[in-house]
Amino acid sequence: MEVLNDLVNYRGLKIYQNTDWFLFSLDSILLPNFVTLNKNIQTVLDLGTGNAPIPLVLSTKTKAQIIGVEIQKDVYELAKKTIEYNHLENQIELLNMDMRDLKKQFVGDSIDVITCNPPYFKVDDMSNLNEDFHKVVARHEVKVQLEDILSISKYLLKNNGILAMIHRTDRLLDILRCCNQFGMEVKKIRFVYPKQGSESNMVLIEARKNGGVGLKVLPPLYAHLENGEYTDEIKKMFSDS
Amino acid sequence: MEVLNDLVNYRGLKIYQNTDWFLFSLDSILLPNFVTLNKNIQTVLDLGTGNAPIPLVLSTKTKAQIIGVEIQKDVYELAKKTIEYNHLENQIELLNMDMRDLKKQFVGDSIDVITCNPPYFKVDDMSNLNEDFHKVVARHEVKVQLEDILSISKYLLKNNGILAMIHRTDRLLDILRCCNQFGMEVKKIRFVYPKQGSESNMVLIEARKNGGVGLKVLPPLYAHLENGEYTDEIKKMFSDS
Repeated sequence: MEVLNDLVNYRGLKIYQNTDWFLFSLDSILLPNFVTLNKNIQTVLDLGTGNAPIPLVLSTKTKAQIIGVEIQKDVYELAKKTIEYNHLENQIELLNMDMRDLKKQFVGDSIDVITCNPPYFKVDDMSNLNEDFHKVVARHEVKVQLEDILSISKYLLKNNGILAMIHRTDRLLDILRCCNQFGMEVKKIRFVYPKQGSESNMVLIEARKNGGVGLKVLPPLYAHLENGEYTDEIKKMFSDS
Repeated sequence: MEVLNDLVNYRGLKIYQNTDWFLFSLDSILLPNFVTLNKNIQTVLDLGTGNAPIPLVLSTKTKAQIIGVEIQKDVYELAKKTIEYNHLENQIELLNMDMRDLKKQFVGDSIDVITCNPPYFKVDDMSNLNEDFHKVVARHEVKVQLEDILSISKYLLKNNGILAMIHRTDRLLDILRCCNQFGMEVKKIRFVYPKQGSESNMVLIEARKNGGVGLKVLPPLYAHLENGEYTDEIKKMFSDS
């Protein structure tokens, strides 16, 4: 079923979603609040944009041109409807294509920032792929793997350009190995904890193309209070964005 | 100047130190409180043991035999004096040797757990090596490098045996690369923050020889309160150990 939901309070942004497919999650709010966006950036690319929650939140934080790439035609159509509903056609462009073809679409060294909330699960370590196919593509590395994301980023980013990702903490070692393999230097990490006293379940990672060494591990980010409510930091992201 | 200081309250453990050389630091309390010590372990090896603070704290937590290795003769002598003062000669053995010669001293696959608080700084990225030579050896990778520690651990540890280290957070990527290179699978990481809201400065890492994948990032460990006092968790380590 297609529904129109609030995304963030700022400018009353709303998002169309299909409840049979998948719904935007906290990740899509955390990533645009984590990535370094300086005033000089001109283009941000969001890989695997889905319903386009990340471009929407990014639009509240930067004047740069934002391009969202989504492989699934009907998901792309719904995202387009959302961009039009919010009158953001001038800032956000959507492309319905396989991100692995982006190297043909853009010249190298042309993008300032790439964001990506990639599929979390390896195909082999999971689970039942019998769920809705839209969800499978969004959650499993069926169509795209970490290596693809790094390879695309390495090619498209300007020198010192930024790749920012959010991923499951238990994939951290894979991600760091992969960044290293593609010459993307990890500069900033922030661990997300469901609540105080828990192990981290999610991690935010920022790497720079040909960046110098020097890693910062930021203060932990707690999602929930003991009573299940969002923490003040998260609430602020939903209202300030 | 040689002094006798309190180490931890438990059993009134004290430690001899030479104030002209270097003093034990919080790291030496954190590491033995982090490492996994199950009931079946027989031997723990502490590489670069210095004044032997780590073996001393370990002795409050395990019945296993503990061996400390220290390259500097006069530091080793002082550590020996400490072990005797605390009547721990039966549990703690000290070896005055270069840890790189341990492969000749022990057979392979014979040690359950290795702990190490290694020199933090690369020789090239520092600083003045004009300080006291005892301090230089303890703090800089003059005598031993990360690769040596991993190579020794890989050789000496039993299958699934544990290497636990504490290091500066800005060396995290080097450490993970090095563990990967030597087939030591990182299983547990805990970031130490000087206080809430600060970036992490230290990190505790545990890896297993030929271990399966599956990384846990534990809740953050804060060292100090806003007023500069140790947090309750740290105070507990000093009193319970």
